[in-house]
Amino acid sequence: MTKLNINEFLHGGDYNPEQWLDTPEILNQDFALFKAANINTVTVGVFSWAKLEPKEGNYTFDWLDDIFDRVEKMHGHVILATPSGARPAWLAKKYPEVLRVDSDGIRRKFGGRHNHCISSPIYRQKVHEINTKLAKHFGKRKSLILWHISNEYSSVCYCDLCQENFRKFLQRKYHTLDNLNHAWWTTFWSHYYDSWDEITAPGPKSETGNKGMNLDWNRFVTDQSISFIDNEIEPLKKLTPNIPVTTNMMAGGAELKVFNGLDYQKISKHLDIISWDSYPDWGNDYQSTYQVGMKVSLLNDFYRSLKHQNFLVMESTPSRVNWQNVNRAKRPGMHELSEMQAIAHGSDGALYFQLRASRGSSEMFHGAVIEHRHPQMTRAYHDVKKLGEGLLKIKDAVKTSYVKAKVAIVYSYDNDWALANCESYSSDKKYWTTIKKHYRYFYENDIPVDIIGPDDDFSSYKLIIDPMHFLMSEAYMNKLRTYVKNGGVVVGTYISGVVDDNVLAYMDEWPKQLQEVYGIEPLETDVLYPSQSNSVLWGNTTGNAYDYCETLINHSAEVLGTYQHDFYKDIAAITKNKCSEGYGYYLACRLSYDFLEKFYHDLVLKFDIKPDYPIRKYTKQITIQVRENSKYRYYYVQNWSTNTQSLDITEPLADLFNGIEIIGNKERIHGYETKIYLQRK
Amino acid sequence: MTKLNINEFLHGGDYNPEQWLDTPEILNQDFALFKAANINTVTVGVFSWAKLEPKEGNYTFDWLDDIFDRVEKMHGHVILATPSGARPAWLAKKYPEVLRVDSDGIRRKFGGRHNHCISSPIYRQKVHEINTKLAKHFGKRKSLILWHISNEYSSVCYCDLCQENFRKFLQRKYHTLDNLNHAWWTTFWSHYYDSWDEITAPGPKSETGNKGMNLDWNRFVTDQSISFIDNEIEPLKKLTPNIPVTTNMMAGGAELKVFNGLDYQKISKHLDIISWDSYPDWGNDYQSTYQVGMKVSLLNDFYRSLKHQNFLVMESTPSRVNWQNVNRAKRPGMHELSEMQAIAHGSDGALYFQLRASRGSSEMFHGAVIEHRHPQMTRAYHDVKKLGEGLLKIKDAVKTSYVKAKVAIVYSYDNDWALANCESYSSDKKYWTTIKKHYRYFYENDIPVDIIGPDDDFSSYKLIIDPMHFLMSEAYMNKLRTYVKNGGVVVGTYISGVVDDNVLAYMDEWPKQLQEVYGIEPLETDVLYPSQSNSVLWGNTTGNAYDYCETLINHSAEVLGTYQHDFYKDIAAITKNKCSEGYGYYLACRLSYDFLEKFYHDLVLKFDIKPDYPIRKYTKQITIQVRENSKYRYYYVQNWSTNTQSLDITEPLADLFNGIEIIGNKERIHGYETKIYLQRK
Amino acid sequence: MTKLNINEFLHGGDYNPEQWLDTPEILNQDFALFKAANINTVTVGVFSWAKLEPKEGNYTFDWLDDIFDRVEKMHGHVILATPSGARPAWLAKKYPEVLRVDSDGIRRKFGGRHNHCISSPIYRQKVHEINTKLAKHFGKRKSLILWHISNEYSSVCYCDLCQENFRKFLQRKYHTLDNLNHAWWTTFWSHYYDSWDEITAPGPKSETGNKGMNLDWNRFVTDQSISFIDNEIEPLKKLTPNIPVTTNMMAGGAELKVFNGLDYQKISKHLDIISWDSYPDWGNDYQSTYQVGMKVSLLNDFYRSLKHQNFLVMESTPSRVNWQNVNRAKRPGMHELSEMQAIAHGSDGALYFQLRASRGSSEMFHGAVIEHRHPQMTRAYHDVKKLGEGLLKIKDAVKTSYVKAKVAIVYSYDNDWALANCESYSSDKKYWTTIKKHYRYFYENDIPVDIIGPDDDFSSYKLIIDPMHFLMSEAYMNKLRTYVKNGGVVVGTYISGVVDDNVLAYMDEWPKQLQEVYGIEPLETDVLYPSQSNSVLWGNTTGNAYDYCETLINHSAEVLGTYQHDFYKDIAAITKNKCSEGYGYYLACRLSYDFLEKFYHDLVLKFDIKPDYPIRKYTKQITIQVRENSKYRYYYVQNWSTNTQSLDITEPLADLFNGIEIIGNKERIHGYETKIYLQRK
Ligand SMILES: [Zn+2]
Ligand SMILES: [Zn+2]
Ligand SMILES: [Zn+2]
Repeated sequence: MTKLNINEFLHGGDYNPEQWLDTPEILNQDFALFKAANINTVTVGVFSWAKLEPKEGNYTFDWLDDIFDRVEKMHGHVILATPSGARPAWLAKKYPEVLRVDSDGIRRKFGGRHNHCISSPIYRQKVHEINTKLAKHFGKRKSLILWHISNEYSSVCYCDLCQENFRKFLQRKYHTLDNLNHAWWTTFWSHYYDSWDEITAPGPKSETGNKGMNLDWNRFVTDQSISFIDNEIEPLKKLTPNIPVTTNMMAGGAELKVFNGLDYQKISKHLDIISWDSYPDWGNDYQSTYQVGMKVSLLNDFYRSLKHQNFLVMESTPSRVNWQNVNRAKRPGMHELSEMQAIAHGSDGALYFQLRASRGSSEMFHGAVIEHRHPQMTRAYHDVKKLGEGLLKIKDAVKTSYVKAKVAIVYSYDNDWALANCESYSSDKKYWTTIKKHYRYFYENDIPVDIIGPDDDFSSYKLIIDPMHFLMSEAYMNKLRTYVKNGGVVVGTYISGVVDDNVLAYMDEWPKQLQEVYGIEPLETDVLYPSQSNSVLWGNTTGNAYDYCETLINHSAEVLGTYQHDFYKDIAAITKNKCSEGYGYYLACRLSYDFLEKFYHDLVLKFDIKPDYPIRKYTKQITIQVRENSKYRYYYVQNWSTNTQSLDITEPLADLFNGIEIIGNKERIHGYETKIYLQRK
Repeated sequence: MTKLNINEFLHGGDYNPEQWLDTPEILNQDFALFKAANINTVTVGVFSWAKLEPKEGNYTFDWLDDIFDRVEKMHGHVILATPSGARPAWLAKKYPEVLRVDSDGIRRKFGGRHNHCISSPIYRQKVHEINTKLAKHFGKRKSLILWHISNEYSSVCYCDLCQENFRKFLQRKYHTLDNLNHAWWTTFWSHYYDSWDEITAPGPKSETGNKGMNLDWNRFVTDQSISFIDNEIEPLKKLTPNIPVTTNMMAGGAELKVFNGLDYQKISKHLDIISWDSYPDWGNDYQSTYQVGMKVSLLNDFYRSLKHQNFLVMESTPSRVNWQNVNRAKRPGMHELSEMQAIAHGSDGALYFQLRASRGSSEMFHGAVIEHRHPQMTRAYHDVKKLGEGLLKIKDAVKTSYVKAKVAIVYSYDNDWALANCESYSSDKKYWTTIKKHYRYFYENDIPVDIIGPDDDFSSYKLIIDPMHFLMSEAYMNKLRTYVKNGGVVVGTYISGVVDDNVLAYMDEWPKQLQEVYGIEPLETDVLYPSQSNSVLWGNTTGNAYDYCETLINHSAEVLGTYQHDFYKDIAAITKNKCSEGYGYYLACRLSYDFLEKFYHDLVLKFDIKPDYPIRKYTKQITIQVRENSKYRYYYVQNWSTNTQSLDITEPLADLFNGIEIIGNKERIHGYETKIYLQRK
Repeated sequence: MTKLNINEFLHGGDYNPEQWLDTPEILNQDFALFKAANINTVTVGVFSWAKLEPKEGNYTFDWLDDIFDRVEKMHGHVILATPSGARPAWLAKKYPEVLRVDSDGIRRKFGGRHNHCISSPIYRQKVHEINTKLAKHFGKRKSLILWHISNEYSSVCYCDLCQENFRKFLQRKYHTLDNLNHAWWTTFWSHYYDSWDEITAPGPKSETGNKGMNLDWNRFVTDQSISFIDNEIEPLKKLTPNIPVTTNMMAGGAELKVFNGLDYQKISKHLDIISWDSYPDWGNDYQSTYQVGMKVSLLNDFYRSLKHQNFLVMESTPSRVNWQNVNRAKRPGMHELSEMQAIAHGSDGALYFQLRASRGSSEMFHGAVIEHRHPQMTRAYHDVKKLGEGLLKIKDAVKTSYVKAKVAIVYSYDNDWALANCESYSSDKKYWTTIKKHYRYFYENDIPVDIIGPDDDFSSYKLIIDPMHFLMSEAYMNKLRTYVKNGGVVVGTYISGVVDDNVLAYMDEWPKQLQEVYGIEPLETDVLYPSQSNSVLWGNTTGNAYDYCETLINHSAEVLGTYQHDFYKDIAAITKNKCSEGYGYYLACRLSYDFLEKFYHDLVLKFDIKPDYPIRKYTKQITIQVRENSKYRYYYVQNWSTNTQSLDITEPLADLFNGIEIIGNKERIHGYETKIYLQRK
């Protein structure tokens, strides 16, 4: 994997000079403002195809050469995007097959972005050609530090080509129809396939209920997207082997859930650098800043964990977005707090969408460093400039990585898809919400956590949390058992180990591997309506149990907590099992956070997981993240409240922003302030 | 009509051995568990087409022969389904015209179930062929007791063939376009048809507002489905004239409303036995068990009334369903309570979906007698086994019918469709809710009720309740008048007799027949917003009037109650009219239940409708239903509360489950318990 | 423009005798009832095409001749509609291209109304032909007073013809693709067009995010509809130049917002008379009658202002509608109150949909003067008859116009569309609600207001209120500046002057014209979540600020009020700027009504805007509207409460309804009563 080669934090972001080629005074103003704000990086080429190839085969790169020249003159960096996220009108007109077919079978017309078939050979060829041209033309530019392929991949297409590729994918996977019929359990409802060409993509006009088929469709979409991505990357790697490649990933919704249209864990293997677009709903009226911060923290950890290395926030807004119901700008101080948060979690910079606001069309009012009017007077510009100054001060801190975590939480795409698709339990199973709830303890207690996939290496973790792991492969269960036998600690929960990787139920008994790990077997899941609950007693602690309460068969586990009501009163609800050198804890029901907090508090003490920092805090509104290299440790201390808070510094540290030494006494941290304390190892 | 020939209550249900042909140990386990649980009936063949005819014309029945053998070895019964509910992929591929066309005009692809055109001659032919083969091959099997045709018919298709059949249906009905144009009042909006081929099915891409057209489309869908059904039944009747035929009917929604995609009252004439699939939301958090029980009670009465004979609950879950937002399992005791409820209302057994859980696909987590893991340890299996033991004890009680009701409530499909389609009053008219509200009094007071259609015979009833009968044909009104003149008592309400059977308004005055029956004419319907109300005074009783308040012209009626507010203060709201030997009561407004309760209390006393049982109860949470034959009367007493309740037994009875004689004293009935008391006539 | 030539208020409305040609007794009854109710006007021909031309080229006008004869016999008036609102089945069958194509690209089938392509040459030709025939045949009828073209125009079609016409519209507007590419800012997302035929209509299957394109599509739909309308009118004007032409316009939704599918301000230039269909939700349970009345008052003012002349309410219900969730009838007294309200605002009559209820189809239960049963006994008929008597008494008052307003509120269609389309601020920007809120002060204080478009003449107004004027053309801003410089007073608000008429952002600074008018520049808009707020202090008055709070750069304005909280505490929120002879007031935030009330109270005093009436009222539940001619002034005083209220009469007036002279003393006005006081000038 090619590394990102930088000596300073990247500061800048998406820039579309092609919109302003007729007004060079705008370009001049932009670069003057960049310089004044310590902006050192521009991401160009995203959606620029029509300007790069205005007519088929007619490439015009001179305007982009000029931008490279300008960047290089200020010793800055260029992140160069391939333009496949949107295509020129001439391409759609000449080759209508490049446009997507919706699930109703109707082919879309030209318009929008991401409106392309991921199978179309013509589209792939055209993308390959322009990527080759870009790599040839700009590949030697000293300012070029990173390829940004396409934009926010999220393709689904139902055209005949995609249908045919789905069938090929299935043939590669299953070899025989017998295998497929068994895996999809097609005898149900007489859906037995006698010929490959009888298979169509699942959807509202065909079949929606076959679990195996739906899961394979999800996997196919990832697989086909990877093949599309590989085709994009191939000429770049060939012509510019030293320039790393990334693409910008997503998260969304009120929950800020990781995007699950594609399996990012699989896609990350085809990229050098992970980057994501971070658009939280800061300043809303239904959550505190601290709570929003936790949602973002989890995502930063997720994206860092994809390759277990530093990442980039590729897009973030300097002020507001334009697509929420209420598009509120960041409050004073929020910009620095939020951008430093990403760096604290391992981001190598602060990049924005967008540097210059578009004058028209759909994102013209999305927050920008340079707004339409009085650009140098806006709060956004001042916030960016102030951050630029700060990043300059802490420049050397870029040569660090996030500290190694002892705790991991498992998130599996197959499992997410299978749970979403599972007709049972309740319709909203809240997988991501549950991950977030378990994550919360570690966030509040400044314990580093990785968010890993089922294929990750477990061996370096002391504790693995594996919630709601409904779909588990045999291989996964074997790995988990090995991990525990070798001394690992795992926390499992209700709704785990129910189906195999074809979404076929495990039969007869709970998988042996899980029995060994946990010493129990789940028998029945009591599914509760929203206003119904049970409670669990564990020592002196009582917790509320809701949504899901499993009854257990206990083979060898120690019963830690029991249900207090209903027909399963006094039955085990929380168990602990010794398995060779390790332990398997099982939470049979969904528990309130106050209970989880005590549970993890005990675990962390018992297994010596909590790191020892030379900083003491007096409120959970303060968070501490750590980056380090061989010589130094950098403590990123952030105050998520609007009030000034106290810290105790217990060892000599340096305050990086203020350039002073601190020797073991009280510190004051203002509302929304970030402090970075340097400790020599 | 062919009768069901059984000597014991049926116990069993849907079974799909074709999913397990490669694992005979599963089949062996199944039959061992059936036997242990006193399961005596399996419903097979539902959705088995692909296994019965894996390639066109290539029939493989041996696996099903084996199942018949196994059942016969245990002296059990087989309900054999025809497989038309889902078709093999080869059939859809070779004859794409068998697949349905949606209302947007797009033909569906292979997938789902019930995805077939009800007109396709090829599909009918293929169904006829396999039904013939099945009847020939299995018709002589001694275990075969019932044909189960297809599954949950619910077809709508907009293909050219269906459109053509719709026009033919209209030609048969109207003979001339003049008749059709008048009935559909096509001069409105210039929709006059000058040629039959100008007519298309109503829908979102054509016409949605023509009331007569919409109603005829509903009728056509039933008519075309009946023709499909007749085609299915024809070879069965020819080859196995002594085996009765059923199909499984439906109900659904939060209200548990009877399915109204098809007119079951018409379809029932083509069947020997009525059966339905009962899936209430037991254990929810918005209704008491008692309230849920009432919803189900009404449906059992509806389905029993379709043919005025015993029926079957063809499907019910031994634990939970998989398609609710919250799929909660039955609480302890609920299984017996719910299954015995159906039997109390006239069901001849307790049948489940499903006996063995599917290993994959969309219903894999629907509750089953035999679950994926530790099947003999589940609550569901124990509940089923316990019920099996009980059914064995009361075996002889199967030779009874539900007691003859003196009260009937009218439910009309034409009326339901016309009300749903009617643009007036308020958008949700709550027809079924209103039926349920009137039903409640009789349910709470243990008075048997039939739910009848407009074509049923009225003569045996003392009281007919005819709520919200918006659409009435001349024939119906004549029949109603005759019924009342001959001494019948009818209760009518607001929004009745407004349109004829073409949804054309009755002109000039309220139909003469209704005037004679009720002695009044409705003049205006005051439609109230949800928070608005009026009140009605009747003697000392005041009731809340809401949603609809009609003002009346009084010709000859006695005014029982009057409005208390608004511009119609002091105007008649409740009237009573003597009409020859009978009475017509009219409720001009929607009234609160407490008021209805007093109203019916008076009526029941006055007309001597309440039966006299040798059992006294002290709470409405107890219900009593009665089945009987020439010698015995069986009282099914059920306790819908979780508390133990008292009963007084006023005559010598036998407690069937406990095998003891009770002589006129106090009894204790536990929470959710069912007692059956036998009385010699 | 041709004037409406009448000597009495029109009373009557939509009448469909073609539905009753087989039942002449119905027609006889209708005319007897018309006469008894002083109905003098029938609107015929709406949706009558199939009866006027039952087969292609075969015209049958005799039945309509008979209606004209009957009307003329009673010395009444005919409003004759052209039938294009719905077409005969034969036309759709022979020329399928007349039917509309939906945004999914699927062509509709025959059915509904308004289901026609606005481009189809065949449809236009057929409409032209029948309009010509109608004009020739009925044009000389002395009873013919008004042409009513089509019905509630609201067309959108996505067929190839419409797509082609959209491109032609764009070519006419932009001349070159360079112009179009700039205006639509197509470099964004590579949407650059290289050829006109690459352009398709915006929609869910193509492009939805391009602001300029969307706005041009809205303008095209109006433009194409005008061309359709002109084609309808052409033969009428040629053959009957003295008969004015109208079409019925719409408003809708819970807010009773003016219909914005078409730009009525542009369309009104092609009509002689403005008319609209008024269907408020009288009697609901979420607003008082007074509040509903204000919604309607605003619309009456809007429609009157379209041509600054008297208008007509073309449709209103005598009782209830049939399409609300709750279709409540008008309460006693409401009919007169609501119909007189329209007349008070400048309507020349009271016209209903419908005179005779249809017997079937979708509007059969819409309120009618003549209902299905006992038509002469209904409340609706009595209300209509009573109003008819009243209108006869005030007959001479028809020769008046609404008094000239000194205040205007600007409503712009382009702005409405651009705001709805704007991805920024919050998703629901509440433009109409804001207009209504500013309007409220004037309504409550009996100050006449016009609702004008951006192209109207400003010179006659003392005060112009111009809220949320997001999209402003250079021409508009120049006009506004001139108006103020010449002594006008303007009130502007937050979110104004942001984009030009291509929805391109104004760059560098706020437009100079606005700076001159207001003396300030908006810098940032703080967008608040629903539960968030700020407050503004102005003298002693504090107002709640919510949704939008702008920060301002102050160049020359006097600061009237300042924010009280947050990072913009103490910054200007309300400013006043002297600009030559006039003033520009700017409200930088959305303010609570109590605050606006005080603000306008001051303004009205300062600029002497409040008229002086010889009537004093003691509650806002009383409204006063004034019509006048050269000799007389008519005061329409309406009581929107259900209680009797007092008035002081300060000068001698005549009470028109009661025919008595009032000399300066107390008057009593009953609940829902309307008084008309005549004053000699
Ligand atoms: Zn494709
Ligand atoms: Zn069909
Ligand atoms: Zn068109």
